[in-house]
Order: sequence, then C-alpha cells, then structure tokens
Amino acid sequence: EDWRSRRTVQIFQYILLKWAFALIIGLSTGLVGIFNNIAVENIAGFKLLLTTELMLKHKYYKAFAAYAGCNLGLATSAAALCAFIAPAAAGSGIPEVKAYLNGVDAYSILAPSTLFVKVNVIGIIFGSIFGVAAGFVVGKEGPMVHTGSCIASLIGQGGSRKYHLTSRWLRYFKNDRDRRDLITCGAAAGVAAAFRAPVGGVLFALEEAASWWRSALLWRTFFTTAVVAIVLRGFIQLCSTGTCGLFGQGGLIMYDISAAKVEYSTPDILAVILLGVIGGILGSLYNYLVDKVLRTYSIINEYVTHSIIDPGPNGSVSAEEELLLRSYFCPNTDVSGNYKSFQCPPGHYNDLASLFLNTNDDAIRNLLSTNTVKAFHISSLFIFFVAVYCLGIITYGIAIPSGLFIPVILAGSCYGRLVGRLFEPISKLDVGLFSLLGAASFLGGTMRMTVSLCVILLELTNDLLMLPLVMLVLLISKTMGDMFNKGVYDQIVKLKGLPYMEAHPEPYMKHLIARDVVTGPLITFSGVEKVGNILHALKNTGHNGFPVIDEPPFSDAPELCGLVLRSKLLVLLKGKAFSNDRVLAGNKVLSKISELDFAKAGSGKGLKLEDLDIQEEEWDMYVDLHPIANTSPYTVVETMSLAKAAVLFRELGLRHMCVVPKSQGRPPIVGILTRHDFQPEHILGLYPHIRFQQ
Amino acid sequence: EDWRSRRTVQIFQYILLKWAFALIIGLSTGLVGIFNNIAVENIAGFKLLLTTELMLKHKYYKAFAAYAGCNLGLATSAAALCAFIAPAAAGSGIPEVKAYLNGVDAYSILAPSTLFVKVNVIGIIFGSIFGVAAGFVVGKEGPMVHTGSCIASLIGQGGSRKYHLTSRWLRYFKNDRDRRDLITCGAAAGVAAAFRAPVGGVLFALEEAASWWRSALLWRTFFTTAVVAIVLRGFIQLCSTGTCGLFGQGGLIMYDISAAKVEYSTPDILAVILLGVIGGILGSLYNYLVDKVLRTYSIINEYVTHSIIDPGPNGSVSAEEELLLRSYFCPNTDVSGNYKSFQCPPGHYNDLASLFLNTNDDAIRNLLSTNTVKAFHISSLFIFFVAVYCLGIITYGIAIPSGLFIPVILAGSCYGRLVGRLFEPISKLDVGLFSLLGAASFLGGTMRMTVSLCVILLELTNDLLMLPLVMLVLLISKTMGDMFNKGVYDQIVKLKGLPYMEAHPEPYMKHLIARDVVTGPLITFSGVEKVGNILHALKNTGHNGFPVIDEPPFSDAPELCGLVLRSKLLVLLKGKAFSNDRVLAGNKVLSKISELDFAKAGSGKGLKLEDLDIQEEEWDMYVDLHPIANTSPYTVVETMSLAKAAVLFRELGLRHMCVVPKSQGRPPIVGILTRHDFQPEHILGLYPHIRFQQ
Repeated sequence: EDWRSRRTVQIFQYILLKWAFALIIGLSTGLVGIFNNIAVENIAGFKLLLTTELMLKHKYYKAFAAYAGCNLGLATSAAALCAFIAPAAAGSGIPEVKAYLNGVDAYSILAPSTLFVKVNVIGIIFGSIFGVAAGFVVGKEGPMVHTGSCIASLIGQGGSRKYHLTSRWLRYFKNDRDRRDLITCGAAAGVAAAFRAPVGGVLFALEEAASWWRSALLWRTFFTTAVVAIVLRGFIQLCSTGTCGLFGQGGLIMYDISAAKVEYSTPDILAVILLGVIGGILGSLYNYLVDKVLRTYSIINEYVTHSIIDPGPNGSVSAEEELLLRSYFCPNTDVSGNYKSFQCPPGHYNDLASLFLNTNDDAIRNLLSTNTVKAFHISSLFIFFVAVYCLGIITYGIAIPSGLFIPVILAGSCYGRLVGRLFEPISKLDVGLFSLLGAASFLGGTMRMTVSLCVILLELTNDLLMLPLVMLVLLISKTMGDMFNKGVYDQIVKLKGLPYMEAHPEPYMKHLIARDVVTGPLITFSGVEKVGNILHALKNTGHNGFPVIDEPPFSDAPELCGLVLRSKLLVLLKGKAFSNDRVLAGNKVLSKISELDFAKAGSGKGLKLEDLDIQEEEWDMYVDLHPIANTSPYTVVETMSLAKAAVLFRELGLRHMCVVPKSQGRPPIVGILTRHDFQPEHILGLYPHIRFQQ
Repeated sequence: EDWRSRRTVQIFQYILLKWAFALIIGLSTGLVGIFNNIAVENIAGFKLLLTTELMLKHKYYKAFAAYAGCNLGLATSAAALCAFIAPAAAGSGIPEVKAYLNGVDAYSILAPSTLFVKVNVIGIIFGSIFGVAAGFVVGKEGPMVHTGSCIASLIGQGGSRKYHLTSRWLRYFKNDRDRRDLITCGAAAGVAAAFRAPVGGVLFALEEAASWWRSALLWRTFFTTAVVAIVLRGFIQLCSTGTCGLFGQGGLIMYDISAAKVEYSTPDILAVILLGVIGGILGSLYNYLVDKVLRTYSIINEYVTHSIIDPGPNGSVSAEEELLLRSYFCPNTDVSGNYKSFQCPPGHYNDLASLFLNTNDDAIRNLLSTNTVKAFHISSLFIFFVAVYCLGIITYGIAIPSGLFIPVILAGSCYGRLVGRLFEPISKLDVGLFSLLGAASFLGGTMRMTVSLCVILLELTNDLLMLPLVMLVLLISKTMGDMFNKGVYDQIVKLKGLPYMEAHPEPYMKHLIARDVVTGPLITFSGVEKVGNILHALKNTGHNGFPVIDEPPFSDAPELCGLVLRSKLLVLLKGKAFSNDRVLAGNKVLSKISELDFAKAGSGKGLKLEDLDIQEEEWDMYVDLHPIANTSPYTVVETMSLAKAAVLFRELGLRHMCVVPKSQGRPPIVGILTRHDFQPEHILGLYPHIRFQQ
C-alpha cells in the first residue's frame, strides 16, 4: 500500500521510475507541442498564402472558394476525428482534468482504455491542429493540457498485461495517488508547452488544476516543465535555421513586448482600474454566455446524434465574415510585423485583414505590438472585438478540441487596445501595453486565477516592468467577476455534472452533522463472510466501499475492522480463496493471489462482476476479508459538523469516510460518506427547508 | 468559532477587515523596505565616499581609521540594538516564521507583547540597516520577512484592550487560523519588498514558509505583494528625481541583465551541469558550516551573556581585510557601473575594490554585468569568493538581524563568474550569465527551493531567456544538496529545538499505531466538573487541551463530549459561573462572560493561573464545561497507523488529536496526541530499538 513498507531496492526503483516518468511526460508533451505549432503554422500559412496570392491577381471568387474550401475541409476533418474516433477529445479538457485531480474517478474522464487513450491523444492533437488551422477562434492550451494528462495517464497505466508489455516495476503506479501526481505533471507540461511558459505551467497546475498539493509534487512538476522548456528551446533554435517550413517566427517568448518603454502616472492608473472593472464584467458575461451556449448545444445534441454538422456552417461563416468585412483604410506603415497589404497599394496594409487573415498567434502579436499607436483604427478594433468575442463563445461548444485562453487573450488584447486608443489624449502608456492589460483583465474575469495568469502573461510577453499593473488589473477583474458568477472551468465542471468537492464547505453545512447526510441501508460484511452475501451485495448495490465488522468469536464485541473496496473483493472472489468453515485464512490468501492483481487497474480495465465464475455450491463457502481490508480507514464521529467533515474529506483526498457512533452499545459504524453525499443537490434534497432559510 | 455561523453583517465586516489588513501589511512592509534601502545606501554611500576621498589624497591611515571607525560604530549599534532591546531580532527570522506557520505557538517566536513587537520591528529595521551599511555580508530579506511577519502579528493582535484601542471588529482575528494567514501575507510581503519581486514573494511564502495552504490565501498573498510592488514602484519613481540622497540607482529590477544575448550550445550545457553539481556540493557544505558555527556561537553565548562582543572584532576584521587586499591590476575600462578607481589612474579601476568597497547590492550588480568578460581577474574572483563564503558563514551567527540570500547570491555569482572565466575558451555564454547561473546553483544548494527561487531570480534579473538553464541548474544543485543534508532553514529550525512537523512521516511511523505513542496519565474532565479538580489539573500539568467526558446522568454511558482548551478554562473560572449542584448551566454561562473574553489573546497576554482568585469554598462547586467545549474534535482510532495520523495532523494544521478506542466497553478516549508526540526524539525515546533497525 505505502511505499515506506517496501525494501530499499524497491524504494529506489520507485524513485527512479517516478523521475523517469516525469522526464518522459515532459519530453513527449514538448514534442507534441512543437509538432502542433509547426503543423498549424504550415497549414494555416499555406492556406493564407494561397488566398492572398489569388486576391492579388484579383481572382476574388476563386480566392473566396479556396479559402472557404480550405476552412471547410479542415473544420470537417477536425470534427470528424472527434465525432467518430475520439468523442472525449472535444472541448477544452481542462475541466475534466480538474475534476479528475479533485478525486472524481468517473469512467471515460481520462479515456477508458489504453488503446482509447492513444486514439484520444491523436484525436486531440490532429483535431486541434485542424481546428486552429481552419481559422477558428480556439486555443491550443486546453487540448495541450488534455494531451499532457492523457500521456501521463497512459504511462501511469503501466503498459498492457495482455500483450506482456508490463514490468513488475510499474506496479507502484497502479494506485490513485501516484496516478494523480503523474496527471498533475502532465497538466503542467501541457500549459508549459502551449505558452512556452514553464513556471506558468507549474503554477497553473497548482492554482487551477490540482485540488491538493504536496511540496514534493511542486518539485516534480517543476522538473517536467523544465524538460518541456529545454525541448522547446532546442527545436526553436533548430527551426530558426528555416528547416521547419513556414514556422520559425516566434522565439521562446511568444509575444515579446519588452522593447516598450513603461512609464505611467496617475491618469494611467485610473484608466487601468477602469479597464479592470470592465474586463471583469465582460469576462463574467463571457462565462455566462459560454454556459448558456454549452447548454444549448447539449440540447441540440440530444436530437442530432453527431455534432459534426456544427463546424461546417461555422467554418464557412467565419470565412465569409472575414472576406466581407473589408477594411476601408490603408494606413501607411513602416513597422515590421505580420501586416497584410490585402487590396492596398504596396507600402500600405489593411488593418482588419492583419487581424482576421492571420493565425490567432499572429493576430495577438499584432495587437500587442508597441510604438504603433495608429496601427489599428478604433472602428476596426471594435468590429474585431465583437467578432472574436462572439465567435469565441460559439466555437467553444462545437465538437473540436479547443482551448479558451487564446480566444480570451485575443478578445482581451483587442478590447485593451481599444480602451488605450480612447484614453490616448490623457495617457502616456503605450497602446500595446494597454492591449496586454486588456488581455490580463479579460483572463482574470473569465479564469479567476491570479498568480499563474500573472506568470503566464509575464512569460508570454517578457515585460517585467508591467508586473505591478498586471497584478492590479488581475485583482480588480477577478474581484468584479467573482461578484457575478464562478470561474469558467468551475462552471463547466458543474455543467458536466461531475461531483466536484469545493474548497469551501457551503454555509449550511455548519448546521448539519455527519450523521444527517448518511443515507440508504448500510451494507456491512463480517470479517469472514459468506461468498453468497458478498455476491449479493456486489450485484444489488453500486457501492465501491464496504465496511468490515469483526464479530465474536473473532473479537469480544462487534468492532470496525476496516474497509474493503469493490475492486479488491472482485479479485479475491476471482481467486477463489474460499474455505468451508468460518475460519481466518491469514496470509494464505495472498500466496494464492499475486499482489499484482490487487493493484488498481487502468480505468475501465478492472474486473467486472460478470467476469466471475462462482458455482452455486461455492455460495455457502466462506472467505476471509481481513487480508484485503484497509484496517485504518479515516473515521469521523457522527456528531462532527458536516463542514468540518467536508474539509477533512477534501484536504486528505479521500473517497470513503466512515462515520462512527458517538455512544457505545450500538453497531460500530453508522454509515459511509462519499463525495456524492457532500454535493449540495444531495443535501438540499434531504433537507429542502435549508434552501428557503438561506 | 467559525465565521459561517455569523450573520451577514459580521461576515461583511470580516471580509472587509481581512482585505484591509492585507492592504496595511503590504503598505507598511513596502514602506519599511524602501526606507531600509534609502537608509542603507545613504549611510554606506557616505562611508565609502569618505574613505575613497581620503585615499585619493593619499591619507591611507586616516582612510583606514575612518573606514574601520564607521564600520565599528555601525556594527556596535546594530549589535547593541539587538542585544539590549530586541534579542529576538537577531538572525534571519525565516526559520521562526516557518515554525510558527507550521503550528508551533511557542512563546517569543513572534514577540510576546504588543509593545515588544514594536520594539522588535524597530530593532530589526535599524539593526539590519546598520548591519548592511557596516559592510557585513548579510542580506536584508530575512529581516524583511521577520518585519513583515511582526507587522502582521501586531495587526492580528487586534489593538490593545488595556488602552481601549480595540474594536469589536477585531475579535474575528483572535484565532490561530486568521493570525497564521496574516503572517503568511507578511512573510510574502517581506520577500517582495526585499527583492522587489512580488510574484517571487508569493511563491516563497507558498513553497518555503507555509506548511498548509488554501487557494484563497494565494489570492490574498498576491494582493499584499501587489501593494508592496506598487509602493516600491512609486517611491523608486520619486527617488529617480534625486530626492533620496545617494539612493536612486536601482530600478524595479535590481540586477537587470536583459541586455545580454543568450546563446548556448552543447558544451555550455555541460558547463552548466558541472556548475550545478559543484554549486550543490558547495551549498550543502555551506549549510553544514552554518550549522556548526551556530552551535559554536550558542556554546560561547552560554559563557558570555551578551554576544555584543562578536560584531566588534568582526567589523574591523572585514575592514582590515578589505583594505589590505589590494589588487595588483588596474584594467582599463569603458563599461559603466559602480567600478572603483581606487589607487588606479583615471580611466582605470581596481577590480577587487569594485567588489569589496561597495554595498553588497552593487557588488552583485558588478558580478552579474554582461559583456564584460575581462572585468575581473580570475585571482580576484577567487579571493573574493573565498572571503565572501567564509564571512557569510561567520557573520550569520552574530547577534544582528541578517539574511542568507544576499551572501549566498554574492558568493554564488562570484563562483559562477569564476567558472565562466575558466570555460571561456569553449563556451559562448556570457560570463555575466554564468554568474547568474552560479548564484542559482548556490541558492538551490543551500535553500533547496525550486519554483520560488526561479521566479525570484527572474524578477531580480529580468532575463526570461535564461529560464531553461536556471531551471536546470536549480534542479541539479537541489538534488546534489539533498543527498548530503537538509535545507538551511530546516536545519536552523531543528537546531532551535522547535517541534516542527515534517511533511513526510518518518519511515518507522508506518510500523507504529497511534496508541503506541500516547504517553502519560490522561486527565479528563466530566461534563459538569468540580472547580477543585480543574484547578488541580491546571496547576499540576502543562497540558493545553483536556478531553471532556459525559457520564450518567447526562448520557447513557460514558461518551466523549469534546475538548476544552486551557485558555478557555481559565476564562471560565475567572468568570466564576459556578453552581452548587451538578446541573447543566446551558447558555447562561455565555451571558455572564462576554464572547470577546474567549477570543485568543495575543501571545503572552492571556490569563494565567495566578490571575485567578478562587476561594476555598468555591472548590467544591461545579462548573458546566459544555458551553466551552469543542464538540467535534478530530479523532482517530487507536489502531490507525502513526504515519497516517501524522499526515492528518499536519495537513489539517491541528494542535490536539483525540485517540479513541477501537473496541467498546472501554473509556471513550485513549489519549491525546500533540505535535510533541510526533517528534522523532519522543518516539525513538519510547522505542529505542527502532533506531537500530534502521
């Protein structure tokens, strides 16, 4: 169970493997990240080059057809991949990872089988490549986090026993805790690869993804993201020689604005505060709308089996919109950057086209560019902001792997630049920096993170002098947003109906005690139990944990011996370590069944009740449950306040908590609490009057 | 007890106050930080100017006398302040803060009385100013963390009731949890102010200082350091106009090296790995020597009452050394910076003098300077490194407020530059960057932090492109260091004998159960207890918590009612809510004694047994303990593994844990575990054979 009971060699194996896994996760996620980037930039670059060339030859209809065709093709491929091969790849993936790390061990959260994980990874990777290349307003960080976690989950499953691709070493990772640790590393690596922000990745995993945290994990996560950073750094240096096709623009810093002169005074700070307030409001509105859109999509999906129809029209809508929204201005320019001349005479460029007809990354780079006050017209910025805000919301719901960071940064930086242009007469701050602050305010308003967003933005832009202002904006926008609703990932977790344990217990839990929420008939086993009883209980309940009670003659009075898990019971029954009499079997059982069999199986791979082959005559035999019982489960007294029990449950990352009676002379256990018992729906269902008292 | 049971207005008051306190802590720590900086740079600047002027006039003896006199005077003042006024101000302060946040509530850790805290703060501030200005190799971050924590502690004590300087509002903070939260914010603010590194401050508090952490705290800490950053930014802008005397050199980035071109290839990485390995070894040697030196000093201190004698000779030693170690080279220079010409013709400078005859900050700045390969001779670097390494170790033990960061960065950057010079023929990396990596390796080797050091270094130097290498070096040096001994702060905590709870339980705890370490006769109270019994127990034991047991007629069988704290018992006895018969008093007691009286008093201010005035005839009266008992204490079953109990104890931040029996028909409580019971000394004392088995 615990590695401290193992021998020195085994501890060494465990530690070696732990770090090797962290290395592998870092390497693979880094490679996926760089592959993703190269593919997106090459596909999108090809598409944009083709269109632009056709337009320069004044073949507008052909250009439109080519552009729309490319988008439609890419979007359809992305959606088809998701719909037919890996449905779990759709969406951001971050809410699922968050729920898993909270302790929700639901089927299919991180892919049910090894093969499926592999397919999923491919689905996510190519889905997100096609999606981003199709010009959707989607980010790649959500899919990258999902990819990183899936890789970690794949590694944690420890090979395949069926194909003899496993090793005794890998058994150490067949438990919840080590698997959660690996997935935390995977999530951090995903963010690090998506934004080339290693420290930001660690903090993201700490602040947003993980529900509980140990300092040792901090160090391991840090190692993983360091590996990602080194892989990325190496490939970027390689690509700077021009060997990666159209890729090679961005360095390790994605949107470097360190060249800007940071100077601000009181009016600027007022402007920044206003920016934060509006950003927070827009952000929470964004969350509200995403929630509504997702609900609508799920209703639509009930009627239409596959949501593959969605991206089609969407893809062409965005194509149409982009070509129709022609700009009427061609400002002269001497700035460098990805400015598109699009129908303008040489030496001039079209500002809207520079935003729409570009990859999202380049658009953000243009928006954040400093010393280019007049580069974008106020009207262009406004049109682009409205378009991105709406497209971002609509696109999130469709069935492709998509992240929220990039759309939010895009809309936010556009909004920031807009505010910067409006405050131009009284402000000394560069509009590019306003753009950064706008992105910060919007991120704060939707994601509701603080330190990790701050560090991610810092690593994206390499401008440390803006730190005080970025911190200020984040604080204001998070405060504003929190007044209206929850963070976007929390909302999605709720929407998906995952039993997430909140960090703070609800106020009414203070007035309830643990006994109040214990429901249902409690099923307990005796220390040496009849096989028939166990089979009956396994068949007729969905419980995953059963208390074991020692009764005379094995003890003087009934007492709680421990807790057995369904999965271990199944293995024990499969092993048929039965006896005809009610006697203790001791460690004979464990010599019959290998320790390896008891290790937690990959999700969906465990034994099922149907796999058992128990004969009628074996029903009356006995089986000793002592060897497989966890003899020191966490217990609380029935009169403990529910709020206190909830804190205990979450802080220790439990799955089952035994409630014991306060007074003597009663059965030694009152009931078992699981995470479902702490859900507000369950409690309010039991005590409907609480809702009115609030 | 818990704020959730309060009314809406009270919750609003609480939240408002919580943020107001964070604001005040941020503001005060920021102001102290900037005041510190201005004072140090002015005093040290004056001293150095005087000496240099005298030397230029070839009055060497006068120069020496002036320099030594200044140093001696400053050092004596610093030590006198500490020795006579605020002895608790000596040393770094970080280990004490760390122990407090781990739950050690020892007398005098964070100053026993309000007045004393104030004196302490002044002691720390001026002590560190004088110490740094005297040219000691000491840092200011330790004292700043201590100052921040003391300010927080002062605020948390909620004014003085004696002088009617309190408010009903402040009672919310009279409990352990809120006070710990405030002190965490104070520690973060201290680091933020010392290094102008707001994000680094948050991470330092998270990684090193705090033992347990909630996400809400992350946000509040972030707010506090944001305030610090804004205060610092404002003053630095103000000082850049030249109104702060000799201050005004450094911007928000203390050692900006972002101008350097970062380019590295395979041989550089090998050099960097070597750097990390040696840095880790040197760092753990540093820890070992600091430990030895501190033990020696404490032995000396047993003989000599005040350690004021130490700094005197030390101060003049460093003066002498500095003047005697004249450099034999005067390289020509066209670089800007704080280079001293010291006995060299104009246009030339003396490289050793540039290091020794400078404040520590300027010396680090010189060492980190890029594009200045030949600026320092290898021999000068070597001499300086040895001097700083030894002086840093010796100085830490003397009785002035001193931090470890600056000495370690100074020694590390010197060592890094030295390695850089040695690898010059095969390395493309700038020696200034080698210097940064040297500092990182040394910090990693002594402090054993990862993410927070990385971010602090980033915020100190503003060079994001070095991030992958800095991460690599930190990982290597931490790993190397961990092979030999523990981090320096952990060592000091151990040395001071504070009962610190480690994050990981010791391996042998796995083989023990909770009952095994319960010692001593258990003293329990009945639900309605005789006054005499309580007085007797309070007088004859040092226990802080007593279990309360309900017996017939108040319950059917003896059952555990809850836990009462010594402090609450004293208040109850002082209130004299006694009755002649053994009956339940109910809430009548609370109407007699104000809720405010039960709030946790400032450390050292609580009621004492001697303050009680109980008459002989009252000894036979009864007092009802139900109103003050905590009716849902955390309990564990006696057979729970000790390792599991230790994790529970630490993760929930407990002070007392009740051990209940597994079988029925026995008294309802077996014993109480406190943090002392989990200390290895206690356990190994009970089971000496474990030591041999290991």
